[in-house]
Amino acid sequence: MKKKSKTSGIIIIGNEILSGKTIETNSNFMCKELFGVGVSCEEIVIIKDEKSVIIEKLNIFRKIYDFVFTSGGIGPTHDDITSSSVAEAFNEKLIINLDAKKRLEKHYADDILTKARIKMAYMPESAKLIDNPVSIAPGFYIENVYVLPGVPKIMQVMFKDIIKSLDEGIRFYKKIVSTKLSEGIIGDYIETIQKKFHSLEIGSYPYFKKNSFGVSLVIKGLDDSEVSKAALEIHKYIKSKDGNPEIY
Amino acid sequence: MKKKSKTSGIIIIGNEILSGKTIETNSNFMCKELFGVGVSCEEIVIIKDEKSVIIEKLNIFRKIYDFVFTSGGIGPTHDDITSSSVAEAFNEKLIINLDAKKRLEKHYADDILTKARIKMAYMPESAKLIDNPVSIAPGFYIENVYVLPGVPKIMQVMFKDIIKSLDEGIRFYKKIVSTKLSEGIIGDYIETIQKKFHSLEIGSYPYFKKNSFGVSLVIKGLDDSEVSKAALEIHKYIKSKDGNPEIY
Repeated sequence: MKKKSKTSGIIIIGNEILSGKTIETNSNFMCKELFGVGVSCEEIVIIKDEKSVIIEKLNIFRKIYDFVFTSGGIGPTHDDITSSSVAEAFNEKLIINLDAKKRLEKHYADDILTKARIKMAYMPESAKLIDNPVSIAPGFYIENVYVLPGVPKIMQVMFKDIIKSLDEGIRFYKKIVSTKLSEGIIGDYIETIQKKFHSLEIGSYPYFKKNSFGVSLVIKGLDDSEVSKAALEIHKYIKSKDGNPEIY
Repeated sequence: MKKKSKTSGIIIIGNEILSGKTIETNSNFMCKELFGVGVSCEEIVIIKDEKSVIIEKLNIFRKIYDFVFTSGGIGPTHDDITSSSVAEAFNEKLIINLDAKKRLEKHYADDILTKARIKMAYMPESAKLIDNPVSIAPGFYIENVYVLPGVPKIMQVMFKDIIKSLDEGIRFYKKIVSTKLSEGIIGDYIETIQKKFHSLEIGSYPYFKKNSFGVSLVIKGLDDSEVSKAALEIHKYIKSKDGNPEIY
């Protein structure tokens, strides 16, 4: 039997996204990386810096998904409440992590290790550190929940590290067939072909470029040969309708 | 008594976002527009093209938020299942909307009105149309749920139209104080000032540019003069610490 792919959910924390000030790109980075190692992302949620909201989401996500990733709210300011929320969600105390504190002390040796900075060393009791080679203050994980910062550059380095440990050798395979025919024209056919190749996921994405429009059909699945077979069949059909298909 | 701002939630539907293929920008557009008319966005969720998942989210969101906006899944293909999911969530039949059908017939007069295209005229019984001047196929709303397409250009035109009707004259006011001091240095002070101005929301956002870094402090609230007062006080403090504050 084929291995089933593991699932994940992403929790993005930050009022600045909900007010439209910041365009959120961390989830896209995570999704691409997860796709690359065959972990499916089932849901992304973007929520406010509010303890009760964070705890509620954490407790739902960690039960239904194999892995949960949070981004945002572990910095040194008053609105950084993710770590204490994670502690509460796991019914653990928020304590100073001595290893994290040591790293901060070393890094800020010539600078001021303020109360605000020390705050970044507070974590749930059973937290295990995730290295931060960029700005030192570590992320952490506890059971299946990975707690990462919101600053993209730092989050990305940490995530690349985590992703290696999640890789179980499962891969999604993907082919894309693009055509100048519109969704309205090929929609009925695609429904038929989806039914025929029911183990695959066939998505239809219209695109609009400067002087042209058309559709990209994305065929995705865990079985390489099935994906290729479906892509070729779609390609053949579209060709017969003069739809100038391209396959890649 | 001051009017309270209304709340909203956004449901983005599409597997292509969860696999990392597409960067989702519709929610950012919506959040900015909502902020502009004083409607707060409380939550964004990005979910799969799966009926049970869409229905579940719809039924939660429409109960807890004043307005709900969905984006994606109302096109002509087999994976466009938002309209039928909305119908089920509201316990209504999915029927052909004659007005929508007429618009499509007129638009596709010289082209082929395929079964796939006719699909776009199917809506819950009590749906009211939202005009689509770009590609004709209308969106719709039912009670407090607004159902919009995923293609940004089309969604944006529709959303601009909706937003006018939501405007109740409530405004958020905002000031930003930026400084070269880091979060670690000013974090303690910001915690104090947040406590003092408890009716405001003070957010701290580190930024990294090519050769510099620093923090933007965003002060937000429903009372213009309170926002200005807090901003000036923060500005004064940072100046006293040689933090080169800028206010805007």
